[in-house]
Amino acid sequence: MTSLIDCQKLDAQDPLRQLRDQFSLPDGVIYLDGNSLGALPRAAAARVAKAVTEEWGHGLIRSWNAAGWFDLPQRLGDKIATLIGASKGTVVATDTTSINLYKVLSAALSIAAHDTPLRKRVVSERSNFPTDLYIAQAICSERGYQLDLVEAGQLATALTGDLAVLMLTHVNYRSGAMFDMQAITAAAHKAGALMVWDLAHSAGAVPVELEGAHADFAVGCGYKYLNGGPGAPAFVWVHPKHADRFWQPLAGWWGHAAPFAFTPDYQPAPGITRYLCGTQPILSMTALECGLDSVLAAQDCVPGQSAMQSLRAKSLALTDLFIALVEQRCAGHDLELVTPRAHSLRGSQVGLARKTGAFAIMQALISRGVIGDYRAGSGEGDAAKDILRFGCTPLYLRFTDVWNAVEHLKQVMESGEWQRPEHNQPQAVT
Amino acid sequence: MTSLIDCQKLDAQDPLRQLRDQFSLPDGVIYLDGNSLGALPRAAAARVAKAVTEEWGHGLIRSWNAAGWFDLPQRLGDKIATLIGASKGTVVATDTTSINLYKVLSAALSIAAHDTPLRKRVVSERSNFPTDLYIAQAICSERGYQLDLVEAGQLATALTGDLAVLMLTHVNYRSGAMFDMQAITAAAHKAGALMVWDLAHSAGAVPVELEGAHADFAVGCGYKYLNGGPGAPAFVWVHPKHADRFWQPLAGWWGHAAPFAFTPDYQPAPGITRYLCGTQPILSMTALECGLDSVLAAQDCVPGQSAMQSLRAKSLALTDLFIALVEQRCAGHDLELVTPRAHSLRGSQVGLARKTGAFAIMQALISRGVIGDYRAGSGEGDAAKDILRFGCTPLYLRFTDVWNAVEHLKQVMESGEWQRPEHNQPQAVT
Repeated sequence: MTSLIDCQKLDAQDPLRQLRDQFSLPDGVIYLDGNSLGALPRAAAARVAKAVTEEWGHGLIRSWNAAGWFDLPQRLGDKIATLIGASKGTVVATDTTSINLYKVLSAALSIAAHDTPLRKRVVSERSNFPTDLYIAQAICSERGYQLDLVEAGQLATALTGDLAVLMLTHVNYRSGAMFDMQAITAAAHKAGALMVWDLAHSAGAVPVELEGAHADFAVGCGYKYLNGGPGAPAFVWVHPKHADRFWQPLAGWWGHAAPFAFTPDYQPAPGITRYLCGTQPILSMTALECGLDSVLAAQDCVPGQSAMQSLRAKSLALTDLFIALVEQRCAGHDLELVTPRAHSLRGSQVGLARKTGAFAIMQALISRGVIGDYRAGSGEGDAAKDILRFGCTPLYLRFTDVWNAVEHLKQVMESGEWQRPEHNQPQAVT
Repeated sequence: MTSLIDCQKLDAQDPLRQLRDQFSLPDGVIYLDGNSLGALPRAAAARVAKAVTEEWGHGLIRSWNAAGWFDLPQRLGDKIATLIGASKGTVVATDTTSINLYKVLSAALSIAAHDTPLRKRVVSERSNFPTDLYIAQAICSERGYQLDLVEAGQLATALTGDLAVLMLTHVNYRSGAMFDMQAITAAAHKAGALMVWDLAHSAGAVPVELEGAHADFAVGCGYKYLNGGPGAPAFVWVHPKHADRFWQPLAGWWGHAAPFAFTPDYQPAPGITRYLCGTQPILSMTALECGLDSVLAAQDCVPGQSAMQSLRAKSLALTDLFIALVEQRCAGHDLELVTPRAHSLRGSQVGLARKTGAFAIMQALISRGVIGDYRAGSGEGDAAKDILRFGCTPLYLRFTDVWNAVEHLKQVMESGEWQRPEHNQPQAVT
């Protein structure tokens, strides 16, 4: 049995413990939803205030040059690149994950139509994040492709000779299950298809080696584990061998080779810059940079380890602890672990399913200051299960936080307080 | 001849004069580039700081409900609606102008393909803002449509029986020339085509009556005359009769009928909400609301006049004054007015062309604190002219500012200081 004292010892020995001081966290809260919205880096308040008052207010239009606004997508992209195994100059921070997915699917289908015109299928996982499926559904319908959704376990049989593109989210948003990026990318290529990865629950959460895995395209989110703030711009990576082959249809001025020549014909910029479109939200971009810096700060904590190596070690220790404590202390409450136990198959979150009451249990936890979230089931099999989702962000979560969170869960279950009517009030957004 | 004293009198009598106090403007600057990036409303600094510290930092994920993040696109859209002659619930603030244009062109072409399948042409103005043409070029190529660019004067002859969509920017970004929205929309409809308007240089600058003109689709910009801050989200309006007919391909979770049901099939929300896609940059959205409020504040300045009526009266007085002073005081310096003299054909800016030196003249003005901008010519005819562009934003520009700006222009021309080498240094962004 793991005790609170054991957890206090783990915190005291944690080489990343000082990284928590980078964040402004509310008193009385154990925050287990950094996989939905990362916490506020303290530096962001002053940095955004400077962008508002000095750059916008005083610099006005001059700040495009003087404050470096024009280079933000590439500068932030380079910082993201170091976290996802990509080279400098191959990532831009821009737009939203959904829109970036539209861009890369468009490019991937253009390449497929040129190189493998007889392949007319796109495959994804049925329990992929729904917005990814909506975007794929729209573009497949436009381009005359068939979108097939399969269970994760059936992927191997779906890699047939008519497959053009395989599109997957690396870490599942519900279960926290992680695909083997290298093996699946190799299998997709062996089948003659292109590979698109969504890193929404991976970037800043688990080590990613896009170039090492020889992936083709990737997108990801700025406001989850990258702590970029609510609705922070997303990112897009394209393998350099593909970047200059086609342009994507969201062809705005910022992706033009000569944006200030104001010519009526579109000429895409070389490389990843052609994945930019319109003017980006500078204030939100500014906050995103503080979020990226908060992750990169893990670089120096363990000698010889990259930021993501150090963060991964603590993340696995936190999720291992969470699973162990739930099993030790909450047994008999019908909570079912939906997250894989094997480290190689797990992201940075823990999902617990319960046949009834999952929504109310999460509301009861939130009212105690333990903030995770609830995801309703829909469909069949594992996807039909209602789950409690607990994100474990190693930058600001302590081992004692995990102990206390499970203690609250135990009390909520044993007292039956989750059955009180006030915990069953529906909310607009949950 | 108009004197400085005349201008001081105009300022003293200006019913909008107190609106300037809403803005934080740098000392020693006459800001004539609000058509590129609007000035900072003082309220925005505190409002954005609250969004960072309280909503993000303290509220964390709970702010989706508690701080009203989820309703921002519609709430801001309703404020924009009152400025562009649209009904509540028909506008959303979201994404960028380019991306919103892609959405509405996509919907317009879907409607055209269904209702008028033999029409295969899209027409726009050759001197339209280039990014609009790039987006149109991309989607026309995708959908098998021909994009024809014509001069503004040749529009009438371009409205032929094969026209599917006419896409125009209401106020030209270079010349400030304004189309007659009502007449051109009627002509497009008479020719059997749909009408798409870009209001980038109109919203907050000139009165717009989208519903009164029976327009079909419109997009516009949040960071120019709406003062929403650098890269503020843009907006999109769709006539209610079209809104539910088709969905647009950027089909993300925020446009779903039941975004938290997490179903794998896309079901578009009714009405304009289906023009939302992914998660929006909340900090930048928050600043945009302050910008919108700064425009709506003109509502109470002249009894019985809407915000846009009052602003339009002052805008025309400012641009009339600017033109008169340049002609009175800068004659003989080869500055050619490219903005129409007729009020009905003029937006809220003044463009001056010069065969040589326009870039250096603007740099010399900027070094004196008179901030307008320069747009290089390209192509033929008027489009080939290099121009000095002066935006006249009635919310914070005084008549004496116009007098002083023209005095600086006069001195720059008479002294020849624009010919100094330091004013010919190229910049990344101009």
